[in-house]
Amino acid sequence: MSGNGFGHLFRFTTWGESHGPAIGCVVDGVPPMIPISEADIQIWLDRRKPGQSKYVTQRKEPDEVEILSGVFDGVTTGTPISLMIRNQDQRSKDYGEIKDKFRPGHADYTYWKKYGIRDYRGGGRSSARETASRVAAGAVARKVLSHLLGNAASVRGALVQVGPYKVSRDNWDWSETERNPFWCPDAKTAEQWAEYLDGIRKAGSSIGAVVEVVADGIPAGLGAPIYDKVDADLAKAMMSINAVKAVEIGAGFEAALLSGEENADEMRTGADGEPEFLSNKAGGVLGGITSGQPVVCRFAVKPTSSILTPRQTVDKDMTETEILTKGRHDPCVGIRAVPVGEAMMAIVLADHLLRHRGQVGV
Amino acid sequence: MSGNGFGHLFRFTTWGESHGPAIGCVVDGVPPMIPISEADIQIWLDRRKPGQSKYVTQRKEPDEVEILSGVFDGVTTGTPISLMIRNQDQRSKDYGEIKDKFRPGHADYTYWKKYGIRDYRGGGRSSARETASRVAAGAVARKVLSHLLGNAASVRGALVQVGPYKVSRDNWDWSETERNPFWCPDAKTAEQWAEYLDGIRKAGSSIGAVVEVVADGIPAGLGAPIYDKVDADLAKAMMSINAVKAVEIGAGFEAALLSGEENADEMRTGADGEPEFLSNKAGGVLGGITSGQPVVCRFAVKPTSSILTPRQTVDKDMTETEILTKGRHDPCVGIRAVPVGEAMMAIVLADHLLRHRGQVGV
Amino acid sequence: MSGNGFGHLFRFTTWGESHGPAIGCVVDGVPPMIPISEADIQIWLDRRKPGQSKYVTQRKEPDEVEILSGVFDGVTTGTPISLMIRNQDQRSKDYGEIKDKFRPGHADYTYWKKYGIRDYRGGGRSSARETASRVAAGAVARKVLSHLLGNAASVRGALVQVGPYKVSRDNWDWSETERNPFWCPDAKTAEQWAEYLDGIRKAGSSIGAVVEVVADGIPAGLGAPIYDKVDADLAKAMMSINAVKAVEIGAGFEAALLSGEENADEMRTGADGEPEFLSNKAGGVLGGITSGQPVVCRFAVKPTSSILTPRQTVDKDMTETEILTKGRHDPCVGIRAVPVGEAMMAIVLADHLLRHRGQVGV
Amino acid sequence: MSGNGFGHLFRFTTWGESHGPAIGCVVDGVPPMIPISEADIQIWLDRRKPGQSKYVTQRKEPDEVEILSGVFDGVTTGTPISLMIRNQDQRSKDYGEIKDKFRPGHADYTYWKKYGIRDYRGGGRSSARETASRVAAGAVARKVLSHLLGNAASVRGALVQVGPYKVSRDNWDWSETERNPFWCPDAKTAEQWAEYLDGIRKAGSSIGAVVEVVADGIPAGLGAPIYDKVDADLAKAMMSINAVKAVEIGAGFEAALLSGEENADEMRTGADGEPEFLSNKAGGVLGGITSGQPVVCRFAVKPTSSILTPRQTVDKDMTETEILTKGRHDPCVGIRAVPVGEAMMAIVLADHLLRHRGQVGV
Repeated sequence: MSGNGFGHLFRFTTWGESHGPAIGCVVDGVPPMIPISEADIQIWLDRRKPGQSKYVTQRKEPDEVEILSGVFDGVTTGTPISLMIRNQDQRSKDYGEIKDKFRPGHADYTYWKKYGIRDYRGGGRSSARETASRVAAGAVARKVLSHLLGNAASVRGALVQVGPYKVSRDNWDWSETERNPFWCPDAKTAEQWAEYLDGIRKAGSSIGAVVEVVADGIPAGLGAPIYDKVDADLAKAMMSINAVKAVEIGAGFEAALLSGEENADEMRTGADGEPEFLSNKAGGVLGGITSGQPVVCRFAVKPTSSILTPRQTVDKDMTETEILTKGRHDPCVGIRAVPVGEAMMAIVLADHLLRHRGQVGV
Repeated sequence: MSGNGFGHLFRFTTWGESHGPAIGCVVDGVPPMIPISEADIQIWLDRRKPGQSKYVTQRKEPDEVEILSGVFDGVTTGTPISLMIRNQDQRSKDYGEIKDKFRPGHADYTYWKKYGIRDYRGGGRSSARETASRVAAGAVARKVLSHLLGNAASVRGALVQVGPYKVSRDNWDWSETERNPFWCPDAKTAEQWAEYLDGIRKAGSSIGAVVEVVADGIPAGLGAPIYDKVDADLAKAMMSINAVKAVEIGAGFEAALLSGEENADEMRTGADGEPEFLSNKAGGVLGGITSGQPVVCRFAVKPTSSILTPRQTVDKDMTETEILTKGRHDPCVGIRAVPVGEAMMAIVLADHLLRHRGQVGV
Repeated sequence: MSGNGFGHLFRFTTWGESHGPAIGCVVDGVPPMIPISEADIQIWLDRRKPGQSKYVTQRKEPDEVEILSGVFDGVTTGTPISLMIRNQDQRSKDYGEIKDKFRPGHADYTYWKKYGIRDYRGGGRSSARETASRVAAGAVARKVLSHLLGNAASVRGALVQVGPYKVSRDNWDWSETERNPFWCPDAKTAEQWAEYLDGIRKAGSSIGAVVEVVADGIPAGLGAPIYDKVDADLAKAMMSINAVKAVEIGAGFEAALLSGEENADEMRTGADGEPEFLSNKAGGVLGGITSGQPVVCRFAVKPTSSILTPRQTVDKDMTETEILTKGRHDPCVGIRAVPVGEAMMAIVLADHLLRHRGQVGV
Repeated sequence: MSGNGFGHLFRFTTWGESHGPAIGCVVDGVPPMIPISEADIQIWLDRRKPGQSKYVTQRKEPDEVEILSGVFDGVTTGTPISLMIRNQDQRSKDYGEIKDKFRPGHADYTYWKKYGIRDYRGGGRSSARETASRVAAGAVARKVLSHLLGNAASVRGALVQVGPYKVSRDNWDWSETERNPFWCPDAKTAEQWAEYLDGIRKAGSSIGAVVEVVADGIPAGLGAPIYDKVDADLAKAMMSINAVKAVEIGAGFEAALLSGEENADEMRTGADGEPEFLSNKAGGVLGGITSGQPVVCRFAVKPTSSILTPRQTVDKDMTETEILTKGRHDPCVGIRAVPVGEAMMAIVLADHLLRHRGQVGV
């Protein structure tokens, strides 16, 4: 296990650098006979694609995915699915500035310290460009979920906080997320963000954000205690996304403030004879196993580290200097983390669905 | 990979139920020639041991660990170390109440739903009793860290919030954590908690908390991007602890509020020629790799679900009923999570230290 | 993955040394609701138990297994099953002879060279005593197979060659294996071996052997190409048994002599509408996936390295010396490898059955 | 773990079908700073390339490898290396014959039975074309070995038996393997094979073979007992190669015929103060750990299943029929298995070298 793969029965491995010829992934363990095409994957990639609004990086990448294996006559065959995306807009530029200096907040120093070498072009392997591979693998995971669970199963994400501005839960409308460039479920807050982020963008600054991902229609029973709890795997999955610094499930950090009485999601018998929970402080997971309630996960994304204000740093020779990062950037990298978070949720759930089927049957 | 193990080169697998004859773990991959004895492990188990104050469960367990393999002539041999702890105080009692009813907030319903059977005695496998095995394995991990990194390396934990009461960062004193029953680094706050928790305890209620774990003396370079980032593994490790609902690294959720300028940990050249960071918003991890700064992780623990106020629930036949949990409980299970969080931090770092040595050398 | 575990969804990890207090294993991933007791495991351990005839080691070990977890109300719960066997007959003796000298054919030198230390008492971790844990885990795997496949599924082993003497395929009678101390399926050959091994034993010598293990009633479709082919996993499983030097499936090495015409297992339609193969050169595996035919595996076991004739060797200081191994030994360690080979076959098939159910469903 | 990857710290995952657009692999865990280029990989691929003599398949594939990631400024960066080989000579033809019929000896029936679908074009995923990816990954593994062990380390293979004709050990000359189309180390035997295989080829038949792979210059201490013994991993690696039916280490099956006295590789003190073994029955592995002697592995390859004589079979509807396989075939697929066996040996050793460095250090 060398770090570039994730999952067990549904397992994917990614490869590629920001400015190499291509990036991609191999998705292994996909059940056979699931209809899938490049178009099915492309629709999800298009959501993450850069350059779609002024609030995200202006790098122009069509992010066209090619299926190189594992699909025959329009369906999966049970063999590994290799997906490749050619890099196109690796803008030729002078890397002199960042070649030898370490950009604060970026992984420049740690990659160099670990490996003794780093591909400094656009961040190399540590670039968020890698997340396109996650979204592609996530599209396959979504197919697995809908194939096995039907269309009731869904994984949706939203941006719920940008800097100090949080969405109003009362105004939450999932369909609204498709109507603004922020995946914001609340039209009013979206307007607020637009103005706020314009200011950030013009100042060459950046700001953090919080993403929420929710899976509905997930049956009770998924998760492999003790160490592969579904929430533990979600925490790992989300924390592995670039710039993520915190993850919470259900009540999350607010659970610290709750009494046992408040925290208890009481149960009643639903109309369908299944349990009906009166609240969802647990975020759909108890003891690491899904309860049948919506699985709710939030994560915090730090502000983009590339900003136009110079910051103090050192170079490879440990000489003190300063740096500012010109070029194409995301004023709020949290926006583009939404489809990535969705993808990771779909991947974790698909893997646990197969594992559950393996250990327990259905 | 069936869920009860954690780690790669340093890997441990736990087993055992709350009311079975014993619990334990097998720790595999420990480097040879490390001096270790049962006493070295016992000192850490004693910190987690129940019944040490009125603020935690009154179950009386000596938690005496036996080393069954892997140690010869007082040193590790490189072969698996089997550790066993006999259960002693499985109080004989009537389980009629919880045998068929699902306690809200507990894993009763989900284990039953997943497996079709559950060992309901004291929560069975989902009991926090399992965490004794983590602490034992963590003691071995600490030995690995000190053997390879020297005594400068340390992993320490503290309780930093109980309900609404947070410790003051200005009063932080690590040695204070050993002088109060809460692992509180701030004597004043400890007094406040004592009074607050007395009230909670007498009311038969419970409250959530936040734990912080810090590793000092960890060299730069540990972590295996992209998916086995050291922070991703910490997130998984902490989220896998019973009752944990949120994990953050460095600035954590507060990163959502920061600008890029504020978030950048600027670098200067230290006296020793190594980089000196002017802040630690990153929590010691950049791009999933340690930076040489202290590794800082916090996690939220929900309130104990076992409380004396009846809660609405259903039973196995989906008949509506209510339940209250009598017996020995923790008013704040977050207290005993401190040594468990420390153990998991030590385990994650030991595993990554060995992995780094394997892939990159030292 | 540190070397002491095997399997994926059905995974077991063993621990313990020949002369430590106990040996054992943790079996993880067992499906729930399978009836199992210590007696169900003991019957298989009794077959491997030492001291049952003059042809095997005279160490007296009752090999009584304790179930420490994972079973409740007589059935598996889906949580890890911890099995422990106390060592009893660690005969107190002077290890001066082997403490510093390396016994040729044993792992003395390599363990010392790898780890810098070794538990020299009875071979420590490298002793075949470890195989008792495999047999215990194999007993659990058999339960999984019969639970999911019914009683038609069976895994049986036989000794088919001792030195130059091979069993006659014409006289093969499975029930005969239970009537002689060699697991020999051919009564006549058993007599021959008895006389032959008497001579070997009296000479203080030893001899190699070949074991055959056959699984019947295994459905088509098990195996995870390309690298986790069922035959690849069998090869690993068998080669991991102490003293095994070769493994073959179906025609095995004889396949080198066959023409394509001879090697083709032609297919007809059976009475049940399933394919009927006219031969089984493939040994029940095609492309790494079971074909529904019997799975046939053979492996060679080298002669016991402990013999009464002195052999030249060196000690830890690289001083030349010689050594002879007194004490209790197996003149033909291949005999006791039969139940171990059966166990490993059952484990491989149980793991692949669960994996297949997970990836493909049933 | 879904079957298409192999290895732990050095881990590779392959993808691709015989008649898809491309095949390839992702090699993860390669240490940084190792000089490598496409040419370094190509030289090994060229050895396996089809169409190089009349004794192997006439499919024309240039097998040109592209490095898509993980290499920067001519050296490895520690990030995953993605290798791709475009398929070129997927001859357009009528697959009607094999589309619905199961070719005996091939994986047609089992893939169909497992997955319910198969890419029948040229065998799809089960085609030996996949082994090009192994050879590419093996080339990277060789670089790891030479980088860490120096040029003394080597992995070489030879064909040692074709049908009934074995090479003479007395005439063994490694350099001869480069001078005939069989990788035969004995010029005389090569002539014999040429004549013999001409007959086989003209008859449209095929024949089995035995390959031997030897690693020299491997230090003592590699291997992770108990289940990841270096010989167990070699057995798995070799058995996973298409058409392999048997694997042996050192004396292999002949060990069944040996007495303990004969089998003991006695030890003397060598000129360099290191042990000198007087024989190598063990094949360089004791207790699953390398001894410093050459690591010797042999495996049997069954005859190509595609032959020109009709064989009885059934189709998807279980209707009885017969089939013969026209087109381009290997009269002795064992020939092209030589570079594949070498690659797998290099991969197993590279993985264990990194694992050993991780667990024990160097």
